[in-house]
Formats: sequence, C-alpha cells, structure tokens
Amino acid sequence: MARVHNFNAGPAALPLSVLEEAQRDLLELPHEGKSTGMSLLEHSHREAPYEAIHHEAIALTKRLYGLGDEHTVLFMQGGARAQFALVPMNFLKPGTSADYLVTGTWAEGAAEEAALVGSRRIAGNTKLPDGRFVRVPKQSELDLDPKALYVHLTSNNTLFGTAWGNYPDTGSVPLVIDATSDVMTRSVPWDRVACLYAGAQKNIGPSGVTLVIVRKDFLEAGRTDIPSIFRYKSFADAQSLYNTPPTFSIYLLRGTLRWIEQQGGVAWLEAESGRKSGAVYAVCDGDPDFFRAPVEKESRSRTNVVFRLPTPELEKRFLSEATKAGLVGLKGHRSTGGIRASIYAAVSMDSVEVLVDFMAAFRKTA
Amino acid sequence: MARVHNFNAGPAALPLSVLEEAQRDLLELPHEGKSTGMSLLEHSHREAPYEAIHHEAIALTKRLYGLGDEHTVLFMQGGARAQFALVPMNFLKPGTSADYLVTGTWAEGAAEEAALVGSRRIAGNTKLPDGRFVRVPKQSELDLDPKALYVHLTSNNTLFGTAWGNYPDTGSVPLVIDATSDVMTRSVPWDRVACLYAGAQKNIGPSGVTLVIVRKDFLEAGRTDIPSIFRYKSFADAQSLYNTPPTFSIYLLRGTLRWIEQQGGVAWLEAESGRKSGAVYAVCDGDPDFFRAPVEKESRSRTNVVFRLPTPELEKRFLSEATKAGLVGLKGHRSTGGIRASIYAAVSMDSVEVLVDFMAAFRKTA
Repeated sequence: MARVHNFNAGPAALPLSVLEEAQRDLLELPHEGKSTGMSLLEHSHREAPYEAIHHEAIALTKRLYGLGDEHTVLFMQGGARAQFALVPMNFLKPGTSADYLVTGTWAEGAAEEAALVGSRRIAGNTKLPDGRFVRVPKQSELDLDPKALYVHLTSNNTLFGTAWGNYPDTGSVPLVIDATSDVMTRSVPWDRVACLYAGAQKNIGPSGVTLVIVRKDFLEAGRTDIPSIFRYKSFADAQSLYNTPPTFSIYLLRGTLRWIEQQGGVAWLEAESGRKSGAVYAVCDGDPDFFRAPVEKESRSRTNVVFRLPTPELEKRFLSEATKAGLVGLKGHRSTGGIRASIYAAVSMDSVEVLVDFMAAFRKTA
Repeated sequence: MARVHNFNAGPAALPLSVLEEAQRDLLELPHEGKSTGMSLLEHSHREAPYEAIHHEAIALTKRLYGLGDEHTVLFMQGGARAQFALVPMNFLKPGTSADYLVTGTWAEGAAEEAALVGSRRIAGNTKLPDGRFVRVPKQSELDLDPKALYVHLTSNNTLFGTAWGNYPDTGSVPLVIDATSDVMTRSVPWDRVACLYAGAQKNIGPSGVTLVIVRKDFLEAGRTDIPSIFRYKSFADAQSLYNTPPTFSIYLLRGTLRWIEQQGGVAWLEAESGRKSGAVYAVCDGDPDFFRAPVEKESRSRTNVVFRLPTPELEKRFLSEATKAGLVGLKGHRSTGGIRASIYAAVSMDSVEVLVDFMAAFRKTA
C-alpha cells in the first residue's frame, strides 16, 4: 500500500522528506558530515550533535516568524493543555486579572484551568444553546477589561472549524494566543503578543513538544513562587535545556520548520492554506444544500474545514468510501460528528485536489 | 562508521531491534498485518493503530512489574522534574507532611520543589561538606516521621552513582520512588509503594515520556483544586489519553518493554545489571589506586558506575582514547567530572566487555 492522503486533526501529516530523513538517520545520526554511531534518540541532550539541532530549531522559529529580541522561544512538554495552566500560573499575580475569549472547546478549557489558578473574566463567548460554535465574536460584542493583564484567545478552533480572521482590538492589553492549530500558517502581530503557544502535532511536527513564545518583560515578571519546572524563566534561562527535552520531537520540529522555510516561509504557508481550504469551501458553496458548511464565512478556519451532509447515513458512506479512496482522517470530532478536513502545513494541494474530486464524484452518486 | 558502544547517562542506548523496527515502519506503520499508509508519527491518538500500541505499553508495564489492581499505570510528560512538583501538588493537602531522603542532586531537587508546594521534612541527608554524595543513609541515620504521608527517595542516583541497595524501612508510611535511572532493573516492593515515577530516557525508551505508577487509593484522594492537566486522576480516568500523548515516545517505550520481556523480564535485567556493573567494579577493585570508585560498596549503583583516575590529565586522555575506540558517553556529569559508565538496560554485556578490556589496556599504558 502507498501512503494515504492524511487529513488527521492531529497528530497529522508530516512532510515526506522530513520522515525520509528521519528514517535514513534513525540508527546513525550524522553530525558535521560523518556518522555519530548512534541514533538521535540515543544522543545526550548535552552534546554537540543534539545541541546543533536544538539551537537551529530555535533560530528557525525566530526567522520564520520574524521575531526580534523582545520575544524568547521555548520548547516545553505537556501540549497546549499544560499551557492552559502555565500561562495563568506564571503571569496572574494576586490583584491582577485576565480576559478570556471563548470560541470553542479548547478556549473553554483554557478559561476553566485559569479559574483554578487566578482571577479571570469571560470577555466574549459565542457558544450556541446547543453547545456548538459557528463563529468568533464581533469586536462590538467584546466586553474587554482595559486593566486586564492579557486577553487569551484561541486563534483557530480545531474542533468546530472557526478562526479569528483578524485578531480583535484589545487596546493596550496584550494577547495570549493558543495557536496550536494554525501556528506558522499566518502572520502574527508580535508587537501585541505577550505569549503564543502551540502543540507541534498539527502544523510543525509530531506530538510531544510545545512551542512557546514569550515576551521577555512578561517572562521576567513571572511568578517565582511556583515550582521551578513550571516557570517559563527556568526554560528561558537554560534555552529550553532546563531538563531533558523531548529530543526526537524537536528534531522533527526542526526538520518541519526547515521544510516550511524552503517552501517559502509563513507568507507562502498563509497563501497556501487559503488556497487549499478555499478549494474545499468552494465545493461546499457550490452545493450548499448537500455540503453544509455551518461556520459563518468570516469565521471560517483555513486549517480545519468542517461540513455536514444531509443525513448521518450519507456521512457514514462518505467516510467509508473516502477511506477506500485513500483519503483518511475526515471524520469529525467525536463530540460533533460530521466531516472535517484538517488541512495543515504538510497536507499538499495534491491531496486537497483528490479530496475535491472525491467530493464531486460522491455528490453524483448520492 | 558502525554503531558505537553507548554509555550515555540519558538519553541513552536503545535496543538495536527496537530502532530497526522503528526505522522499517517510519513511513508506513503496519496494523493488523497491513500498512496503514502513514507513519505512527502521523496517526491520530484516537484511532486503533495507536491505541493498540498505547494499551500494550500499559499491559507490558503491569506484566513486567507484576502489578495488581491496586496500582494504575500512567504515561505523562515533563520528565521526573515535573513529577518533583506533581507528587506534592496531588498528594500534600494542608495538614499533611512528607519526608524526603536526600541522597543526590535530583533528590535535592525533588525536596526543593516540594517545599514550594506543601509541608515537607528532610528525614535523611548524606551530602558531604564538599557537595558530593558517596552513599545512602543507614537505617539508623533516618529521622522518619511516623505520621508522614509518604517518604520520597531516589532509588538510584545517576550523577554520583549511588543507589539504595535495599529500600529503607519506613514502617507503615508508603514510599514515593524516583526510579528514573533504575526503572525495570530491579524488583519493587509494590505493597509499600504509593507512587513510582521514571523518565523513560535511560532504561525503557527515549526522552519525552514519563512512566508514573500510582496506588489507586492515593490517586483517588488526590487534590482536585489544582489544574486538571496536573491531576493524576485526569490521566488515570482517560487511560493516559487525557490529551494528545507523546505517541512516538510511547511507541518506542512499548518496543523497549517488549524487548525486556523477551530477554527475560525484570528478574533477568536485575541479574544482568549486577553482572554488567560488577565487571566494571571488579576492574576498579583490582586496581583501586588507579581506578578509584568513590562510592561506598553497599551504596554502589548498578546502572551508573562512577570512578576517577589519579589525575585530571589521565581522565582527559582516557576519555579521548575511549572515544577513538568507539566507547562514548563516559564523561562524568559536568558538575562532578571524572568517569561515569552508565550501563542501562540496552547496554549489552558485549559493550561492557569492550570497556573492561579498554580499561585494562589503558592501565598498562598509563
């Protein structure tokens, strides 16, 4: 069997060239032109072969995002969910409060964890009575506290397929962004960002490593009465070698960032994401009674395209025939049902074209 | 170049057959006899191919350790250092206290993190005035609180090469064990253990996953006012699929545990660890003025054999010539200097014999 067209929501498709390099080097990692005689998996994180990879991954992140000296790049563990807790633990001192914008399941999760840690308000919420989310709030719907320490938002909602097309205007209050499902697929207004975090396993690598970008003044003002392993400053001071990092995940992150840079960087990926998701939305919009895209147009995600078919039976048949055609991962989240095509960085336009053709062919037989 | 003899302190050597399997399957993971068309790295953690691996890794852990229903096996992230914080966060409620036994750098770190979280006592400490540790405490030196909630100890001290030959008698107070550097290399008195944790990257896999084994009554009594991502119960209730796990690390953990089982399990590894470390200690004991093993005999580690040569110059030459002979990772920790041979599960007796021969040959030329 050949490799399939992978629309998984995460962990998700990786660039084939990155996997091929990992496969080639799996028993003996080369360093400076010769074999080190062991796998990257067996290398100490305190020796040159791994350190070169680690620091290149940091440099690539800075270069791709155009980061200056105001921000520090960290590699941590525990996924975005750990960041739900770590952001308020590090930043929310007694007497301060943060605003949370609730636009989906993970945004809700972040707000729930924050409430266990410190003081936080809900400054916007687009949850429908039936539990779904089909849009992000309008600027006029936001109830922002000008004294908030930060405004937390989820830039793209993997589960319901919504996204902030433009980040909201929060005045002088900086943003904290969970960018797990759209990291590197759009430019970021760094002058307004106190912290951005993203589990790598959708757009930029495998599971097991979380990219965290923190503004240095926020980092320096972080709480020091929490366990040191939870302080951003511990990781910043040690360039994310505070304790043993998830070395192989960072190696694949490095490979994926290299690949993104070779393709043309964030600007290329932003355009490509629009083109890929646009092709699927075009099929939906051309036949909206059959392919029902529930998300309002201005809130549509460019990485998670969600749609429904007229009946659950048709959806089941669609998924079954798609699998036979080599299109996998299209099943909607277990809490929502329906169809979801996750079109992350490494999902090619070729795969999207196969999907679009399949949708057209399925429509004719339905 | 061929593969080297790897004495790294962690990340460390993995079984060659496990790496070969990972290499073979890196582009297309098989499941139930046929290709899934994608890498394990690209698989959803909510689908059968990954779930089969995940649950097999849990079952293997239970089988290898002979665990009954009283204990739950968890896979977490963040290394042992995260557990330094999570153990007291989960267990130490107001009005309770824990005892910590300080036998090395990591034991000290665990005690420091615990002090930030709750009430803890130091019930034993073998630190020398010069900062070194060359033994664990004698039973008579312990100052145990019979009302303590648990006694925390580090069963093997990677850095100084000491170990608890026998676990101390703590009466009815259960143990919490950091077993990062000797997990699966010795049997564990489970009827006395409330919690055992171990970063996988020394004996049972790569970095990026932490094995945590918790007694269910402890787990059920855990605090619920901490962020849910930090609660052992969140992971237990979801069988460690609470959020996206480090899937590839768990896949390699599964492979390594399978390999340990095929070799003969924990009893085999315990005997083998004694045999391997014993061969190196025998060289030291045969020429103690040249190969100075500073650790007291009854506290010697069977996974980290530490020794010094008469001068720093000789140590430097030893390390340099060892590298040329294909023996790597023998440099002592940056804080101690000297020589350290880490002889974890996947380091073969063959590699140890090459080391022993090298030591004898070096002695003759020195």
